[in-house]
Amino acid sequence: MQVSIWVNHEKDVGFRVTGQLVDALEHYGAAVRMDEYCAGVLKRPELGVDRAGLIAGCDVVLVLGGDGTILHAAREAAAADIPVLGINMGRVGFLSEAEVDNVQEVARRIVQADYALEKRMMLQARVIGHPQAAEHIALNDVVLSRGAFSRIIGVQIYIDGQYVDRYMSDGVVVSSPTGSTAYALSTGGPILAPSLECILLSPICAHTLYSRPIVVGADSKIELVLTAADKDAQLALDGETLLTVSNKLRIEITRAKSQATFIRLKGRNFYQLLHSKFSEWSMAEELPEVKA
Amino acid sequence: MQVSIWVNHEKDVGFRVTGQLVDALEHYGAAVRMDEYCAGVLKRPELGVDRAGLIAGCDVVLVLGGDGTILHAAREAAAADIPVLGINMGRVGFLSEAEVDNVQEVARRIVQADYALEKRMMLQARVIGHPQAAEHIALNDVVLSRGAFSRIIGVQIYIDGQYVDRYMSDGVVVSSPTGSTAYALSTGGPILAPSLECILLSPICAHTLYSRPIVVGADSKIELVLTAADKDAQLALDGETLLTVSNKLRIEITRAKSQATFIRLKGRNFYQLLHSKFSEWSMAEELPEVKA
Amino acid sequence: MQVSIWVNHEKDVGFRVTGQLVDALEHYGAAVRMDEYCAGVLKRPELGVDRAGLIAGCDVVLVLGGDGTILHAAREAAAADIPVLGINMGRVGFLSEAEVDNVQEVARRIVQADYALEKRMMLQARVIGHPQAAEHIALNDVVLSRGAFSRIIGVQIYIDGQYVDRYMSDGVVVSSPTGSTAYALSTGGPILAPSLECILLSPICAHTLYSRPIVVGADSKIELVLTAADKDAQLALDGETLLTVSNKLRIEITRAKSQATFIRLKGRNFYQLLHSKFSEWSMAEELPEVKA
Amino acid sequence: MQVSIWVNHEKDVGFRVTGQLVDALEHYGAAVRMDEYCAGVLKRPELGVDRAGLIAGCDVVLVLGGDGTILHAAREAAAADIPVLGINMGRVGFLSEAEVDNVQEVARRIVQADYALEKRMMLQARVIGHPQAAEHIALNDVVLSRGAFSRIIGVQIYIDGQYVDRYMSDGVVVSSPTGSTAYALSTGGPILAPSLECILLSPICAHTLYSRPIVVGADSKIELVLTAADKDAQLALDGETLLTVSNKLRIEITRAKSQATFIRLKGRNFYQLLHSKFSEWSMAEELPEVKA
Repeated sequence: MQVSIWVNHEKDVGFRVTGQLVDALEHYGAAVRMDEYCAGVLKRPELGVDRAGLIAGCDVVLVLGGDGTILHAAREAAAADIPVLGINMGRVGFLSEAEVDNVQEVARRIVQADYALEKRMMLQARVIGHPQAAEHIALNDVVLSRGAFSRIIGVQIYIDGQYVDRYMSDGVVVSSPTGSTAYALSTGGPILAPSLECILLSPICAHTLYSRPIVVGADSKIELVLTAADKDAQLALDGETLLTVSNKLRIEITRAKSQATFIRLKGRNFYQLLHSKFSEWSMAEELPEVKA
Repeated sequence: MQVSIWVNHEKDVGFRVTGQLVDALEHYGAAVRMDEYCAGVLKRPELGVDRAGLIAGCDVVLVLGGDGTILHAAREAAAADIPVLGINMGRVGFLSEAEVDNVQEVARRIVQADYALEKRMMLQARVIGHPQAAEHIALNDVVLSRGAFSRIIGVQIYIDGQYVDRYMSDGVVVSSPTGSTAYALSTGGPILAPSLECILLSPICAHTLYSRPIVVGADSKIELVLTAADKDAQLALDGETLLTVSNKLRIEITRAKSQATFIRLKGRNFYQLLHSKFSEWSMAEELPEVKA
Repeated sequence: MQVSIWVNHEKDVGFRVTGQLVDALEHYGAAVRMDEYCAGVLKRPELGVDRAGLIAGCDVVLVLGGDGTILHAAREAAAADIPVLGINMGRVGFLSEAEVDNVQEVARRIVQADYALEKRMMLQARVIGHPQAAEHIALNDVVLSRGAFSRIIGVQIYIDGQYVDRYMSDGVVVSSPTGSTAYALSTGGPILAPSLECILLSPICAHTLYSRPIVVGADSKIELVLTAADKDAQLALDGETLLTVSNKLRIEITRAKSQATFIRLKGRNFYQLLHSKFSEWSMAEELPEVKA
Repeated sequence: MQVSIWVNHEKDVGFRVTGQLVDALEHYGAAVRMDEYCAGVLKRPELGVDRAGLIAGCDVVLVLGGDGTILHAAREAAAADIPVLGINMGRVGFLSEAEVDNVQEVARRIVQADYALEKRMMLQARVIGHPQAAEHIALNDVVLSRGAFSRIIGVQIYIDGQYVDRYMSDGVVVSSPTGSTAYALSTGGPILAPSLECILLSPICAHTLYSRPIVVGADSKIELVLTAADKDAQLALDGETLLTVSNKLRIEITRAKSQATFIRLKGRNFYQLLHSKFSEWSMAEELPEVKA
C-alpha cells in the first residue's frame, strides 16, 4: 500500500509528527512517500518525491495541517480519485478527522482499510473569454469580490440562464455545502448539511438590502457577470486568488466532475463539530492581549 | 373530465370569475363542481358538492384565491394525488399560475391537458405523546413559537437523532423549499430553489446569537423538543394554529409521503417572481395612509 | 436610613439571603422593610409593609432577583426618584451590581453611602384613544407584536410626525439603550452603550426585507399605527403584556420624564458584561438534556 | 459674497450646469470662483483659482456632483468652517440638497442668505506609531479591512480604554451618523438619525457570529488594534484608501474637532430620502442587461 504524507511545514515543526507517522505506517507494512525537503530533514531521502508524485500512484493521502492544507490536498487528490485523511494540527477543523496524539491508531486503520469513505461535491469555475480560461476546482467556494481600492461591484446573477438579481455589493460567494461553514457563513449564509448536493450563493455586504442567500440544486449552472467593475476585482477559489480582473468578465460555475473523498474513522457528528467551532469563536477564548 | 373549482368567497366577490370559469370549462366539455353555497349563488345547484366531494373523484382542482387558499387546497388535493392550478385573485403570489383575465385560455388548456406538472415536497409533523397525535401535513412550514404572553422558549433541535443546538428564541420555523419564501424568509432564512429536496430550519429571533439557519436533506428526521416551555406555546402548520401546548412536547418532522402537484401553463421563472414580490414589498408601494 | 428589600420569592428560597441582608443592614444601623409575607417567614413581622410601602419614604431599594425583578422594581422606584441596587440571584445579569456572597460588604457601603449613581433613561408609552390610555413606563422596551393566532401585522412608523416606513412584520420593538441588549438584540438590533440618550426601533421578522433598525434621539416622538391589525395584537412593556388590542390603535412613545437610578459599587465594564453574557449564550454551556 | 463652485468634471459634462450657476450667482451679485480648468472651458479664466483657493476666503461652497464629491468638499470646507450646498448630479443622494433644474432659485437663496444650516459630526483617525501619523478626517466612515489577497483579519476593539471584542472578520467600519446609510448599512448596521451625536462600530463579515454593531457616544475614544494582520490590510476614510499596512497598527478614532456644515433650503425629511434610496435599490429598477 502506497501512503503519501502531505505536511504543512509551518505546523509540524521539526516534522516530529510526520516522523512518528512514517514509523507507524512502515510498522504496519505501508510504503510511505513525502515531499523531498521533509524526507531530507527526516534523513529518509529515499522517501522523497516531487509534487506530482505526492498524488500519482498512491492509495491514500494523509494530510498534516489545518483546514487550508487539507482543502488544497483534497482538491488535488480528487482529480485522481484518491481518498484523503486530515490529521488536525491547528484549531478545531471541519475537514480533519484525527488528532496528532493517535497517530499509531490512524496508521493501523489506514493500512488495514478499516475506515469509511465520505464523498463531498466540489465546484468548477470557468472564466469565459479570459486567456486563462481553464477549469478551476474549489472544494469550499468560488468568491468574486471587489479589489482593495474600490468599494462596490455590480454582479449580475443568472441561474440556469434565468436572470436572478444584480448584487451591488462587496462581492458574491458561491459555495458548496462543505464551504457553507467557511466564508459564506460570515456573509450571513445558512449552514448546509455536508451531504447535501446543492450550491449556495450569498452576497457579501449587499447594498441592495433585499438580496438574500439562495440555495440551488447541484446541477444548476451559475453565471456571474461583472457589470459595474472596478479595476481590481478578484476571483478566488478556496481562498486562493486566481485572477485579478479589470475588464468585463463572465464566470460559469457548476458542480465539478470529480468529488473529494474523505476517510472517516469514527461516527462523525457534524453538528458537534459546529458546537466546538462556535465555542472556539465565542468570546470566552478571545482573551485580550496585553495593551502596550 | 371532472374539474373542481375551489373558491375563496371573500376574494371572488359575487363569484363573477367562478361563473366565467364554469362557462368556459363547460364550453370545452368538462364537468364542473364547486361548493354548495357558490353553486347556489350561481343558480347551478346541480354543480354543488360537499367538502369531500371537492377532491374525491375529480381530475383537476382549480383554485380561485390567494396563496393561503392555494396552500389549503393543495394539501388536500395532494393526499389524493390530484393536480392543482391556482388562479391569482390577490397580490403577487408564489403559488398561482394564471391571472383572472385569461380564464378562457386556462379552461381550454386544462381540458385539453395542455400543461406540465410540477411536484413540490411537503412536510409531515407528528406530536409525540399528545392525545391529538395524528400526522399533520404542511406545504410551507411547521412553526413552533412562543405564545403571546411569554417572551422566549427553549427548543432543542435534533437532526437524525443527533443533538444540534438549543434555540433560546421566539421559536423555530421548519420549512420546505416552497415555504422558504414565506415566513422563513422574514426570520433571516435563505431562499431555496423550489425544486430542491431539502428542509430548512430557522430560529425566530434567537437570543443565542450564533444560531443560524440550517438546511438538511429531505430524508432527514427533525425533532423539536420544547425544554423551557411557556404556558401557551403554539404549533402551527402553514400558518394555521394546530395546538396550544403547555406541557413538554416532542415534535417529529419529516418529508410527507405525498407531494403537492401544481399545473404549469407557462415557462415559469421563479426568480422573476421573486423580483415582483420584492418590488411589491419595496417602499414605493407602501404609501402612507393619511394620518387622522 | 430606610432601606427597602424587594425580593423575588422564587429565587431566594427560604429568604436565606434576605435574612443575611437584614442582619447586615441592621448591624450598620439601617432601618429595613420588606413585603409582609417575607417578613412573616423571617419572623420579623414588624418589618413588613404593603407594596406602596416598599417605595414610599425609603432611601434605597435593594432588589434580590434576576433582571426581570430588577426591571420591575427600578420602574417603580424611578417614579419616586429612589436609587436601586440589584443583587444577582440568577444567571449573568445586565442590571445587577452585586453577588449574593458579599452581602455584608453591600450593606456597609449602602449605609455609608459609599457608592456612585448611574442614571438610565426610560420610555413612556401612551395608547391614544384607548380607554386605558394612561401613561405607561418601560425601562427596556415597548413591544407591539402580533397575537399568537395571526402571522403578520402592519405597523406604520412615524418619527417626529414624519412617516418613516410600514413594517409588515411580527411586530416592532421600541427600546431604550438599556433594552438594546434584551429583546431588541434578538431581532437584529445593534448594542447601544447604556449611557447613550437615544431610542432604538427594530422590526421583528420583517417581511419588507429592506426594513432596518433605526436609532433616533431621545427627544424624538415615535408613533406606531397599527394598520393591518389582527384580532389579538399585543402591547407589552418590559415583557409584561399591557393590552390585547383588536381595533386600530395609535401608540405614542417618548422618553419618560423620570429616570431609573442604579447604585454602582464598582467600576463597571459594560463590555465585559457583554462578554460574559455572550459566553453564557454560547453552545459550550448548552448541554443537551438527556433524551427520554 | 464669495461663492466657490466645486464641480465633478465627469458629472457636469461641458460644465453646462456650472455655466448656468455662474450666470445666476453673478446676476444676484455674488463673486464666483472655480477650478482653473473649468474656468478655462467656460472662457472665464479670471474666475479660476487653485485648490486651496476653492476654500480659503469664500463664504459658501456649492458642489456639483454626487455624494462622493460632496463628501470630499464638505471635509475640506469643514476645516475652515464654511457651509456647503450639494447640487445633485447623479442618483438619489443623501448629501445633496438641490437638483440641477432649479439653479436660478438656488443662486438667489444663497446670495440672500435665505437658508438654514445643519451641522454634522465628523470623525478623526490617528494611526499611532505610523510615520504618516497625521490626523485624518472622515465625514462618513473610517474602515479598516483585509487586503485583496487575504481572507480575514483580527481586530481588537477598545472603547474608552475598555476591551470590547476581537472581530475575526473582513474588517470593521467606524461610522458617523451620516455614514450609517453608507457602507455601514451593507454590513448590517442600523440607520442612525443624522442629527445624533454618536459613533457606530460594525464588523464586516464577522466569523465570530455573536459580534454585533455597537453604538457609542460621540465623545468615546475608539481604538482598533490589528492583531492577526495580513500583508496588505487597508485603512480607508470615506472610501478613499489612506494606508496599506503590513505591520501591527493601532488606530485611534474620535469625533473630529470640526463639524461639516450643510446648507438646507427646504424642510428635509431624512426618512423620505431613505424611501427613495431603498426604492432605487429595489429590484424594479435593476433591469437585466441583455446577455450577449
